[in-house]
This record gives sequence, C-alpha cells and structure tokens, in this order.
Amino acid sequence: MLSFESDYTIGAHEKILNRMQEINMEQQKGYGADKICEGAKEKIRQECECEDAQVYFLVGGTQTNSIVISTMLEQHEGVVAALTGHISLHEAGAIEYTGHKVQEIPGHDGKIDAKELSGFLKTFWEDNSHDHMVFPGMVYISHPTEYGTLYSLTELKAISAACREYDIPLYMDGARLGYGLMSADTDVTLPDIARYCDVFYIGGTKVGALFGEAVVFTKKNMPKCFMPKVKQRGGLLAKGWLLGLQFDTLFTDNLYYEISKNAIDMASLLKEGFQKKGYKFLLDSPTNQQFIILENEVMERLRSKVAFSFWEKYDENHTVVRFVTSWATKREDIQEIISFL
Amino acid sequence: MLSFESDYTIGAHEKILNRMQEINMEQQKGYGADKICEGAKEKIRQECECEDAQVYFLVGGTQTNSIVISTMLEQHEGVVAALTGHISLHEAGAIEYTGHKVQEIPGHDGKIDAKELSGFLKTFWEDNSHDHMVFPGMVYISHPTEYGTLYSLTELKAISAACREYDIPLYMDGARLGYGLMSADTDVTLPDIARYCDVFYIGGTKVGALFGEAVVFTKKNMPKCFMPKVKQRGGLLAKGWLLGLQFDTLFTDNLYYEISKNAIDMASLLKEGFQKKGYKFLLDSPTNQQFIILENEVMERLRSKVAFSFWEKYDENHTVVRFVTSWATKREDIQEIISFL
Amino acid sequence: MLSFESDYTIGAHEKILNRMQEINMEQQKGYGADKICEGAKEKIRQECECEDAQVYFLVGGTQTNSIVISTMLEQHEGVVAALTGHISLHEAGAIEYTGHKVQEIPGHDGKIDAKELSGFLKTFWEDNSHDHMVFPGMVYISHPTEYGTLYSLTELKAISAACREYDIPLYMDGARLGYGLMSADTDVTLPDIARYCDVFYIGGTKVGALFGEAVVFTKKNMPKCFMPKVKQRGGLLAKGWLLGLQFDTLFTDNLYYEISKNAIDMASLLKEGFQKKGYKFLLDSPTNQQFIILENEVMERLRSKVAFSFWEKYDENHTVVRFVTSWATKREDIQEIISFL
Amino acid sequence: MLSFESDYTIGAHEKILNRMQEINMEQQKGYGADKICEGAKEKIRQECECEDAQVYFLVGGTQTNSIVISTMLEQHEGVVAALTGHISLHEAGAIEYTGHKVQEIPGHDGKIDAKELSGFLKTFWEDNSHDHMVFPGMVYISHPTEYGTLYSLTELKAISAACREYDIPLYMDGARLGYGLMSADTDVTLPDIARYCDVFYIGGTKVGALFGEAVVFTKKNMPKCFMPKVKQRGGLLAKGWLLGLQFDTLFTDNLYYEISKNAIDMASLLKEGFQKKGYKFLLDSPTNQQFIILENEVMERLRSKVAFSFWEKYDENHTVVRFVTSWATKREDIQEIISFL
Repeated sequence: MLSFESDYTIGAHEKILNRMQEINMEQQKGYGADKICEGAKEKIRQECECEDAQVYFLVGGTQTNSIVISTMLEQHEGVVAALTGHISLHEAGAIEYTGHKVQEIPGHDGKIDAKELSGFLKTFWEDNSHDHMVFPGMVYISHPTEYGTLYSLTELKAISAACREYDIPLYMDGARLGYGLMSADTDVTLPDIARYCDVFYIGGTKVGALFGEAVVFTKKNMPKCFMPKVKQRGGLLAKGWLLGLQFDTLFTDNLYYEISKNAIDMASLLKEGFQKKGYKFLLDSPTNQQFIILENEVMERLRSKVAFSFWEKYDENHTVVRFVTSWATKREDIQEIISFL
Repeated sequence: MLSFESDYTIGAHEKILNRMQEINMEQQKGYGADKICEGAKEKIRQECECEDAQVYFLVGGTQTNSIVISTMLEQHEGVVAALTGHISLHEAGAIEYTGHKVQEIPGHDGKIDAKELSGFLKTFWEDNSHDHMVFPGMVYISHPTEYGTLYSLTELKAISAACREYDIPLYMDGARLGYGLMSADTDVTLPDIARYCDVFYIGGTKVGALFGEAVVFTKKNMPKCFMPKVKQRGGLLAKGWLLGLQFDTLFTDNLYYEISKNAIDMASLLKEGFQKKGYKFLLDSPTNQQFIILENEVMERLRSKVAFSFWEKYDENHTVVRFVTSWATKREDIQEIISFL
Repeated sequence: MLSFESDYTIGAHEKILNRMQEINMEQQKGYGADKICEGAKEKIRQECECEDAQVYFLVGGTQTNSIVISTMLEQHEGVVAALTGHISLHEAGAIEYTGHKVQEIPGHDGKIDAKELSGFLKTFWEDNSHDHMVFPGMVYISHPTEYGTLYSLTELKAISAACREYDIPLYMDGARLGYGLMSADTDVTLPDIARYCDVFYIGGTKVGALFGEAVVFTKKNMPKCFMPKVKQRGGLLAKGWLLGLQFDTLFTDNLYYEISKNAIDMASLLKEGFQKKGYKFLLDSPTNQQFIILENEVMERLRSKVAFSFWEKYDENHTVVRFVTSWATKREDIQEIISFL
Repeated sequence: MLSFESDYTIGAHEKILNRMQEINMEQQKGYGADKICEGAKEKIRQECECEDAQVYFLVGGTQTNSIVISTMLEQHEGVVAALTGHISLHEAGAIEYTGHKVQEIPGHDGKIDAKELSGFLKTFWEDNSHDHMVFPGMVYISHPTEYGTLYSLTELKAISAACREYDIPLYMDGARLGYGLMSADTDVTLPDIARYCDVFYIGGTKVGALFGEAVVFTKKNMPKCFMPKVKQRGGLLAKGWLLGLQFDTLFTDNLYYEISKNAIDMASLLKEGFQKKGYKFLLDSPTNQQFIILENEVMERLRSKVAFSFWEKYDENHTVVRFVTSWATKREDIQEIISFL
C-alpha cells in the first residue's frame, strides 16, 4: 500500500547506509568526540555562513526541544510558542517535565505574528507583577510549522527583532527544515536562519537520516557544560559518530537540499493533481505537508489504497486529511493516487 | 593502533547492517508500533522463558536507567545502589535530575551484599522517622558490574529475597549482560534473571548493536502509560523499528550469545597472556573488563601501541588500567599486545 | 490611608492571637502530630459533613496548589484550568516547576463551563494520539474565582459529573472560600463542596488567619505517604500546631462564617455606594472582590485617599480597578470612600 | 511532663507575640515588601558587619536549604555535604527533588574536614571524566551540626579557602546558629560567618521565633529574580511582614543572643549534672544538643518523667539519647531531671 502518512516511515538515504557499512569496523572515540562529527560540524558551519556556530548532534526532535529549551532558560522563565506549536501540543509535556511553562500565544496557520508577540512580551516589561508570573525567556517557532507553512524573511526578521528588543533568544525547530529551505515559495535561506535565530536545529530524522538533529547555536551561546547537561537528561549517544556520519553525508554534495527538493516536487505534483480534480485544501502549504478536504466517502475509498493521516473534521460530510511527501517519495506513487481519485 | 578502551567504539555486527540495508526503503509504523519490534519482543520473551514479559526498546543506557527508575519509583522514594554503581557515579546525576536520590550502600568489587542491603532496608521499616527520610523504593544492581564482576545465582536470589521481603522491585542494569551470561564462571542464566529481577535491561550498545537497550518488565509491572512517559522524557525514537531490527537480529540464531562469547574468549586470552608475563590484576574479573596493575613505565610504553583506560593509581610506581574486549575483538590483536609486553 | 488592595494585608482575628498567647509556652508535638491539629481536623470534618475527610494543613496557597496537584497527578498528566486561573497565570509557574502542564481552557468571568470541559476531555478518550499529548489528570477550579464569581450548585454538579465521567478528580482552590460561602447569591454549601469535589482547600490566609490553608481530601484519596512528599517539597511546618490552632479557632462558634460575612456585607455596601453614584462594574461579583470601571481622572483622585489595585485598561478614558473587602473591613471605611466619591 | 525532645516544641519569645498583637491590625504590603522586613534586614546586615548583605526571609529550614541550593547551583552541579548532614539524611530528598545530587563525604562528629573536602574537589578539576559525573557546585555545612558540634574559626577558614580555590560557594545551615554563636567554646562570630561563607541562614524556628529563617547572601550573590523563584517553589509568604517582625524583634537589644545563651547555660547545667552522676556522652557537644549514653533500664525509667529522643543503640545494654535545651528551658526543669537520676 502507498503511504503518505509521514516523512519518517522509511530508513535513510542509501549514501548514509553505504558509508555506515564502510566505516562500521573502524574504532571511533565515544560521545561525539570523533573526527567524523568534527567534519560534519564544520560543513554545517559553512552552510550556515556562521563560522562561530557551535553545533551539537542529538537523536530526536522532542529530545532536542526539551534539552535546548531547558538548558537555555533561567529557572523562572517560560518559552513562548504558538498554541498549535509542537512543544505546546505534541510532545507529551516534555517541556513542562523540565519545569518550564510553554506560554501559548495565537497561531495563524501555525505561525506566530511578530506584533502579537511584541504585545505579549511588552506586558512583562511594563507590568509590575512579574514576581507572580512566568517570565518569557525564549521564543519558539517551527519552520515549516505544524501546518507546513513558512515564515517569510520579513516575518522572520520581525520576530527576531521582537526577541532582541526584549533580549531573549529566538529558537527555531527545524525538524523539517530541508523542506522549508527548498520550497519554491520561500525567501529564507540557511544563512538567514543562522543570522536571525539564536539557536535552531536542522532535522535529520524526517529528511534522509535514520535519526538525528543538528542543533546550531549561532551566537556563541551554547549553554556552559552542555555535554554533562545532555548526559544528565539521557540524551548522550555513546556512538555519537553515527550522528556525525549522517549529517556529514547529508551536507556533502548538497544531498540534504537535493533530497528535500524531491519532497517539494512530489508535494507540488500531488497538490496539482488534487486541485485539478477539484479538491480544496485547508490552507495553502508550500512544503511537503498537504492538508486536503475530502468528502468522507472519498476518504474511505482512498484509505483502501493509501495511508494518510486524519487531521480534523471539516463539516458533517468532509474531513481534513494530511498527505506528507518525503525525500524518498516516488513520482509513480503520486501518479497512482491521482489516477485513483 | 589497537584499541581496548571500551566495548562501544565500533559499529554493529554485520548482520545488523545488512538487514538494515534490506528493509531500508520499506514503510514502517512509527514509534515502535511496527512488526519488527513485535517479533523482537517475542524472541526476547522466549529467551527469558517469561511469556508475560513486557519488553520496551530504548536508545541508550543512561536514558534507560533514568526512565525505568523514575517511572517505577513513587515520588518520595529513592533507589538503593552500590557506591560504585553506574547511576551513583557516572551518569552525571541523571537519576537526581528526575527528582530521586540514589541511596548509596557499600560496593564489594562493584557488588552489593544481600545482608548489608537487608540491614539498610530494615531500618526504614523499623525506624519511625520515615517522614523525614528518603524511602528506598527500588534496588539497582548491574551485572556485570562496573568492575566486570558477576553475582552468583545464590547472591542474586538473596538480593531478590531481600527486595521481596520489603516489597520493592529489583532492577538489573544489563548494559553488558551478554558478557555476563557467557562468562565461564557464571551460573546465572537469562531465565534466572527474569525470575529474580522485577525489571532489567539487555544491553545492545556494548554488545553488537549500533545502539539500543531492551528493557524487560518481568512481573506485568510496566508503568501505566509508559510510552507517553518515555516521550515526555525525550526517549521516544521515531523510527523505533531500528531498535526492534537490531534486537531481532541479535536474538536470531543465538547471535547475541555467540558474539558475547567472543569477548569472553578474548578476555581470557588477554588475562592469561598478562598473567604469564607476571602481571597482577586489581581483582579477578570473569568478564570482558580486565583491571591490570602495570608499572608506570610499562604503561607508558604500552600506550604507544594500544589504547586502554586509566582506572586508578595503585601506588607510587604502579597504575591500574582497564582493558576491555568486545564482541568484535580479534585474536591477532590480543596476540599482538601479549607479544609486545 | 484606607486600603482595599487585598484581603491579606493585615494580621489575624484577635481570637487567634489571644489563643496563641495562651498556649505559647506549652510543649507541642512537631509537624502537625499535635492534639490541636487533631481537634481542628475533626471540626472541619463536621463542617463538611464528611466524616471520612482527610484534612492536612499547609502554609500558603501556591504551596497548597503545587503540592496537591503534583502529588495527585500521574507523571504524564496535566491539570485543566481556566486561562485566567490562579495556577495558569499568577503562581510563577509553580505547577510547571513540578513537571506538569496546566491545560488551559476558556474562562467566562473566571469560571470554566462544564460543556466545554467535557468537550475538551472527550477528545483525549476518543482520539488515538494520547501518547504524544499531555493527558488531563485533574480539573482545577477556584471558588470564588479570580474575578470574585461563584459557581452555582448546578454548575458545580455539572463540572463534577464531567470529571467523574472521565474518572479524574475535581480540585477546588478555596483561597477565599469563606467569602464564597457567605455570599448572598450562592446556593453552594461546604457539604456540597465536600460532596462534589474530590479535594479542595479552605483558605485561612485571606480569611482571618495569619497564614494557613486546610486541604480536605473527601474521598479517602489523600496521596500515599503525603507527609514525606510535603517535606520533600519544603512545605512541612515544624510548629504545625500553629496551623491547627488557627483553623480550630476559625471553626469554633462559626467564627469563619461570621467574619466572612463581614467582607460580603462591606462589599455590598461598597457596590451600592458606587452604583448609586453611577459607576459601572466590569462584571457582577457576588463576593468580596469588586471590579469597578473608573474614569481615569477619578481614579487618580481616589488614589490619594485609598489604596486599590489596577486591574486592566477599559478604554482610553476608563480603567478597571479592583477593590477588595475582608473579614476586617470597617463600615466607616466604606462610608468614607463613598462620601469621597 | 518535662520535655527535652527538641528546640521547636513551644511557641515564640513573648516579645514577638506582643509585637504581633500591637501591629496586628495595621495594613502591610504583601510578600515581604513592607517596612518591618526592611528594618529587620538592616539590623541583620549590621550584626553581620556586612553592609552589602542581601537578606531574604523564608518560613522553614528544609524550604530554605532546598531554595538556596537549587537556585544557586548550575543544572549539572551537586552540593557536597557530610554523610550525616541534614540535607543528606533528614529532608526527605528535598534537594534531589530539585534535580541535584547531594555528594556525600565523611562526617566527623557531624563536621566535614577541609583536607578531605579539598581532596574530593581536586579530582573533579584534575580528572578528565567530568562529563559523566556530577560536578560539585557548592559546599554545605551546618553550624552547629546535627551532633551539636561547632567548626573552629581555623576550620571554617580552611573550608572557605578550599571552596574559593575551586570557586564554588560555601553555604552554612544555621538552623541553630544562635546556640553556636553563644557556645562557651566557640571563636566564630556572626561577622566571621558572613566573611567566610557565601551564603548562610540564621535560624528562627529553633531560636525564639514561631517560624522563620533569615538567608544572608554575603557577596552580592543572591540569585537573579530570586523572588519569582521562591514563588515558583511555593515558598513565598503572603504576609511576609510576619517574618520581618520576628527577626526584627530577635535582633533588637540582643534578644537573639541572650535567649540563645540560656540554652547553652541550661545545656551546661544538664551536662554537668549527668557527668557528676557518672554518665558518659557520645561526644563532647558544646551546644544545646547533648548525646548521653544511658543504661537501657535507666532510660526506661527516665521516660516516665521526661521526653527526649532515641538517637542510636550504643551496645546491648546502653542507648544513646539526645537531650535538647532551648531558649525557653528553665533551670528548675534541669534540676528536676538531675535530682531524679
């Protein structure tokens, strides 16, 4: 059966597995102190045009969010995020587990608005009742968002400016960053992100790797003693070189971008196909997640042929479903669905 | 250069990588809900002769200890461990990070003593000052221990009995379990462990896998809602099938045992070689970690040829060093060191 | 200067101080194991018409909320509260500090709606994505609310029914409970609260005591080993009898009700006075907190005479301010403000 | 019955209660922002001869230890204490609850040794395996200790020097500080403590107050945003002036010292009395806690007359018991016990 359920349902790009085979029996230093990690970090620094960047590899997205946020916040601070943010809704309270509140502000198709953010932050600096409130100590955005949407460069700059006005870091969750960077509709580049964010991560799990996320601290702001803090939170991988190897491969010969582009191309094909048949979308997503409004009966019929996710009820007779393409999606699979419609 | 620094410095057994290649592009369900994990769990249940066992795969050892302990303890309880236990000393406070005290009792070559344990536990049930003390809620042992030593079946039974007398679970850290099971000097089997421990884990990272540990709850005592608790702690792997695949391979055709035996054989050869040349050992380890007392000058000379770990100063002129063999250690490497001595 | 800033700005009812003087030099058992506490608990059980009730005295409100919630929730659970709830906004993240999310739903003049609550809870039992979400494990309400409003008995029953349908406890924050019970507009009694809530607290700090809150577990549901858990959270008072003494005095000869009634009477007088002069209120509060809309210029003039709290801007020319009466408010103070208007 | 069980079994010095009566109906600012607190802080600064000292009042000892330690440590750090320290044994894991390990080193009659401390700290700066260990981030001592013993000025200086060599703060738990300062055998003054400790607290609960401890940060090192952090931990008292009033009274006209001296005088009388009758002591305590070795049969006889604490078994026929005098102990009570012997 065809599957468009998610972008983490298969393994890794073959180049990664091949390289794993090659160096499998070589001795490596433990815990990421190896040369492969060093090489991968250097490549990422170059891609980000940020030679001071401190790069650290972690295993998964929730782990990364929880470690980055809890090591960067002061004890009494919270992290501001969209109501629909991944950390707000879909990480089982991993941020609160570390003792910090996720301070939810409105999301607009998954994005926060710089003005609303400023308004929210302002009250804390104006108001005199701080001592009884959670102080915002960081802003979290994802790019693409939970809804596949992207910040424009103007929007990113405005959010960054709001954070800088109140002197708190801006953190971007890039679980699907490749798909954001390769969207036809974006004017935001990796160097832009490094410039306007204080910390972000480049997702591997959903973009060609078996697992792994590369955290990039762009302002020499990696928390002091970061490694023992990672260990303390159970996030230190013994064979850290496995992470380095994957990112080194992804950032060799533009692999990360190329395979990300495939997901975008396939998403466009899918979108076009559905549109031609008259289907409507919940919103206009420029990346690899597409939210399609299906008649319930069509949805049921499709289910026999292809796996996708239920998103939400639209009305009595219609349902919003999510189709996700990935670095590995094949053209013929898209064609098969379309012709099936 | 030869390396005997640790048992986690190279990749995985080739069968694992080959199988990874084979199924790389197959669609799998996320988060361990796949069939490969199911198969691996069933194999482990059979190996443990414990058909009710609940098996859960996690990525690394510290993560496993911290998740198992913090989800099984009541809020006001601590975990009893040897002063030299891994959770006491070498996990950067990962247990305390979850809010629980590690209650340290003496270690004897890494092992705790059932009588001392009983004595310690007894005071809490006798004494009337519980309300101001941390109540022991679990006992932690490792097998092999940090010193490569093993519990005899009699010792294991006695510790288990002490735990049951006071109705608290016994947890065994089996990061190097294979090496314990295949030691020539053990009378403890995997079914014994499943019988006398309430929860334990079978280590993969140090025994043939790229990463991964298989937690086994033997008394239908997996904490309620374990999966969201794992997610909350950042320990849920998106492509959980990677863990299942590794354990499924290790527990097919006795691979786990066979490769573990290699480490034991190589450790014997190494031990014999050093002994023949007149070297003494800190203690008699029946597993893959050997603690050798070297003259400082010999130590320096060896360093140019082979990597090993500093353990502790023995006296002015001697140092204790640790040599670790693994599933992948080659006979010729041992011979090369011995002949170099 | 007159003060209507809050209900915790002066000391305690004189009967409390007198009794403190009387027994000051008597030896008492530590940590609440004394007879005075026992007597006070028994009186509270009788007032609640709940002979099984387990009563525990704590020092302050935030401490009480944080201890009750964090000891009653499972690790992966959150507590549902109004967006405007005290635990949501004004306790500096004390709930999140214990590792749990406050799951915010709409507040209507400070109250949650039983239907909206049911709708929110339902999704968790229907939806299959629990493992990535915070599971609601308790519902928090306050009575009176942050806005001085009260639940009717019908509303309380409906919320209680929703909680029971999904088998999670209902917790009522009664920091100002006396003022709720003595409102002219309430049909909710203390026995009703004991019947429909699973746990609640009777506030002392704001109602006649120097400090102290009496937690009442109504369903034999006090968390196991509650006292060491309180100690662990730094909430155990050495001279626990100080708490018992205050509640024993408050629940002797109806003192708690009588002094609460004074606050209500004074609030009515105040309300009437302002209304007669044509002032409008933000909402109709039946308790001791009154939210008055003042022209900015009037507000400034009043400030020289009386202390009150800024609540929020109403429009360009008007501001909402809060006046709070208490058990100790004097009739002549109210008259003085009114005549000053 | 006579009681020598503890120094927190009765109320407060009458001057405190009288003053409470006097100002009971005066309006005060909440949360310690009042003038009484300001006055008390200034008096303490003067007594400490430390004009920069930042003073903060909290309610109880465990709360104080947990708040001071958890707000001053970095996330990956632990606090070093004697095995017999209060935070090690008798606070129900309150430090671990905040995520930090108590790193236990030997206690000698309750005291740590500066050389042993240096040796312990040194390994962390020498050793290269920090990343897997809890880093010591603070040293905790109590004065008097759990055994009533005192540090000499030389010992205090040496411990302070060790802390400064490794640049970590020294924290003194002064739950019974008055009794230490007024011991006949001490050469340590309050200004010495302010000089050699980075933070300490002056105990009120056990020395004349109803409750309350005054934390003194001596090096302008009060953690940033301390008040919201206190709130977050449930330690903020609404009527904070109650704490200020008690310390203001205690530090007016040398009351704190005078009443402390009474406990010392009474302890000497008691000691002398027991010694004259031939009783031996577990150790030579120069403060208000006396550890007496009693024949079991004598112990049983005494019990009918006077309350005291079981400390530990001495041998088959003897038991160590603890007698505690306090600021309120009367000469005739001591005489009555002695004559009863």
